[in-house]
Amino acid sequence: MPVKITIDKEEKHTRARLGRLSTPHGVVETPIFMPVGTQATVKTMTPDEVKQTGGRLILSNTYHLYLRPGHELVKEAGGLHKFMNWDGPILTDSGGFQVFSLGPLRTITEEGVTFRSHIDGSKHYFTPERVMEIEEALGADIAMAFDECAPYPCDREYALAALERTTRWAERCKKAHKREDQALFGIVQGSVYHDLRERSARELIDLDFPGYGIGGLSVGEPKEVMYDVLDHLMPIMPKDKPRYLMGVGSPDCLIEGVIRGVDMFDCVLPTRIARNGTVFTHKGRLTVRNAEYARDFRPLDEQCDCYACRNFTRAYIRHLIKANEILGIRLTTIHNLHFLQRLMEKIREAIREDRLLQYRAEFLEQFNNG
Amino acid sequence: MPVKITIDKEEKHTRARLGRLSTPHGVVETPIFMPVGTQATVKTMTPDEVKQTGGRLILSNTYHLYLRPGHELVKEAGGLHKFMNWDGPILTDSGGFQVFSLGPLRTITEEGVTFRSHIDGSKHYFTPERVMEIEEALGADIAMAFDECAPYPCDREYALAALERTTRWAERCKKAHKREDQALFGIVQGSVYHDLRERSARELIDLDFPGYGIGGLSVGEPKEVMYDVLDHLMPIMPKDKPRYLMGVGSPDCLIEGVIRGVDMFDCVLPTRIARNGTVFTHKGRLTVRNAEYARDFRPLDEQCDCYACRNFTRAYIRHLIKANEILGIRLTTIHNLHFLQRLMEKIREAIREDRLLQYRAEFLEQFNNG
Repeated sequence: MPVKITIDKEEKHTRARLGRLSTPHGVVETPIFMPVGTQATVKTMTPDEVKQTGGRLILSNTYHLYLRPGHELVKEAGGLHKFMNWDGPILTDSGGFQVFSLGPLRTITEEGVTFRSHIDGSKHYFTPERVMEIEEALGADIAMAFDECAPYPCDREYALAALERTTRWAERCKKAHKREDQALFGIVQGSVYHDLRERSARELIDLDFPGYGIGGLSVGEPKEVMYDVLDHLMPIMPKDKPRYLMGVGSPDCLIEGVIRGVDMFDCVLPTRIARNGTVFTHKGRLTVRNAEYARDFRPLDEQCDCYACRNFTRAYIRHLIKANEILGIRLTTIHNLHFLQRLMEKIREAIREDRLLQYRAEFLEQFNNG
Repeated sequence: MPVKITIDKEEKHTRARLGRLSTPHGVVETPIFMPVGTQATVKTMTPDEVKQTGGRLILSNTYHLYLRPGHELVKEAGGLHKFMNWDGPILTDSGGFQVFSLGPLRTITEEGVTFRSHIDGSKHYFTPERVMEIEEALGADIAMAFDECAPYPCDREYALAALERTTRWAERCKKAHKREDQALFGIVQGSVYHDLRERSARELIDLDFPGYGIGGLSVGEPKEVMYDVLDHLMPIMPKDKPRYLMGVGSPDCLIEGVIRGVDMFDCVLPTRIARNGTVFTHKGRLTVRNAEYARDFRPLDEQCDCYACRNFTRAYIRHLIKANEILGIRLTTIHNLHFLQRLMEKIREAIREDRLLQYRAEFLEQFNNG
C-alpha cells in the first residue's frame, strides 16, 4: 500500500485524530493542510519557500496540467515531482470539480464528460479511464478518483444521480488504475442529504480505497450545514483510512473539520486572498491594501514569526501591492500559508494534550472579535 | 566624505580600474553593476535574493518614490533602507531622466520642471532644491543631482543648452544639499558631441563632486557612438572619483564601459527582459518562452550555478511563463541578475590579472556566436 495512515492518538473529547500519513515521498503529520499548486507551482512561491512555511504535502490540479503543459510533457520530465522540483508528497485532484464548474462548456454522459478548455476553447473528453491515465502520468503520491461534484443548492434527485454515477466511476477508476507507487482515493458525494452521504460512503467503502475524499462541500452552503453533514458522515468512515475534506481551508473550518475527524484539507483561500492583499492575523482578516495601513509600520501580525513579519511592515507591503509589485503578494502569500501551517501545528498540539475544544474557544475568541 | 573610492589597481592594457567604494552602508567592490529597484523593490525579488545573486549596491528611482508612496512616508518609515529592509548601500537617481522622458506631460523652465504624474495625471513641480529635499528624505547613500537629459538624436544647440542648464542646476543642487551621510554626484551631459561632453565634465569637476554620473548615453544612439564618447571623455575624469555610466547594462556594454574606465553601472535590462521570458546565457540571449524550449529539460544556462539553474529546467520555466505563473519571471530575474553579477566578478578578476582584453574576446566570441 503506497499510502497509509497511522493514528497515534484520538482526542478525548472530540473525533479529532493525530496521525502520520506515509507516502512514497515521505511521512507527514496529520491533520494536515495542503497548499494548492494548481499549475505545478504554489502561486508566487518556490518549493523551498513552501517548505519554510511548513508545507509538507501539496495539491496540484489534473485539469490544469492536462491542458497546460500536458500530462505527457510532465511524464517526459520525469513526473510532477521532478518537473516542479518538489521532493515531498503530492496529491492530484481528478479534474471532476473543475470540469463540472465549467457549466455550459461541458456535457455529461454515463461514459464521461466532454468539455471545452477555459484557455483556448478546444474540445476535450474525460472519462474515468482517461483521468487515471493522466494522473498516472503526473505521478502524484495520491490520485483522486473522477467524480461528479453536485452543485449547491441541488435537489435530492440530482444529488442521488450524481452520487450513483460517482460510485460507478469510482469502480471504473479502480479498475483502470495501475500504478503501484500511487494511492487512489475515492470521493464521497451526496450533497447535504445525510442518507445520501451515508449511501455514497458505504458504496465507496465497499470498494475499499486506501483513503477517502469528502467532495461537494464548501461549494456555497452555509458552514453550519457542512458541519452537520460531517457530524453525520464521519462516524461511519473507516478509522484506519485517511479522510480528506476537499476545498476547505478557512481557519474556523479547519478547526471544525479536525474536531469532526478530518485528517487532510486543501484550499486556494490563503493564496487567493493573499493576492488580493488580504491576510490572516490572530485577530481576524486584515486587508493590508487599505488606506488605513499606509503609515502602519507594524508587521502584518504582531504574533507571527514568518519571513514577511520578521522583515517588513504593513506600510511597505501596502506600498508594494498598490504599486503592483510582485514582492507584495509574495509576502502576503508566505504569511497566509505560514499562518495556516502554524494553526495546524497548534491543532495537533491541542489534540496531543486533549484540549482541542479549549483551543478552538481561545482561537475563535480572538479571531472573530479582533 | 560619506562616499569614497579607493583604486587598488589599474589594468595594464586598458583604462579599467579595480577599486572599493566605501559608503555609509558598507564597502563594495568596483566595477559594480547595480540592480534597479524602481519602486523600493528589485522587481519580483526579496532583498535576500538580490544579495544571493551578488547584488551589493542598488538603485532606486526618486521620481517613482516621490509619487508613490511619497518621500515623506519613506522618511517616516526611517528612510529607504529601513522601509525596504535593504541594509547595503543605495543610490537614488534624481528623476531627471524620468521627467524628461514624459514628453508632452512636462514643461521646462530655468527654475525647474512641471510635469504630470504617469499614475494619475496630477501636476507636480521639480526644481533642483525640491529634488534635493526628496532625495534627502529617501536617505540613499548616493544622491544624483537633478539634470537635463537631452534625447538622441539631439542637435548641438539643444545639447549645449541642456548641458549648461545641467551645470547651473548642479550648482543649485550642491548648495541645497545638506545631508552629511549622503554623497551628491554630478551628472555629465553633452550628448554625442566630444567638446560638449568635455565642457560639461570640466564645469562639474570645478564644482568638485565626490563622484560623477555620465548621463544621456544609451538613449538610442549606436553602441559605437557611446564607446566613442567614453573614449574621449573618460581620460579627463578625475582618477580619484567614482564614474557611473547611467542606464547601461548589456553584457557587451558593461565590458566596454569598464575597459574605458567606468566604475559603476545600472540598468533595468536584466530584470525587464527576464519578465518577458528572455535570459542571458554564455551563448547569448535565449527566449525561454519560445515553443522550442517546451521539452528542453536542460537548465537555462548549463554553465550557470544560480538558484534557477540548479533547480529548474527550461521546460518548467517556459510552462510557468506561458501559464502566467509568477515563479517563472522570478526565476528568469534571479538568473539574469546572477549572470551579470558573475560577469562583473570575472571582469574584476581579469583586471586584477591584466587580461581584460583577452577576457572580452573570449566572452564575446561565445556570447555573440552561441
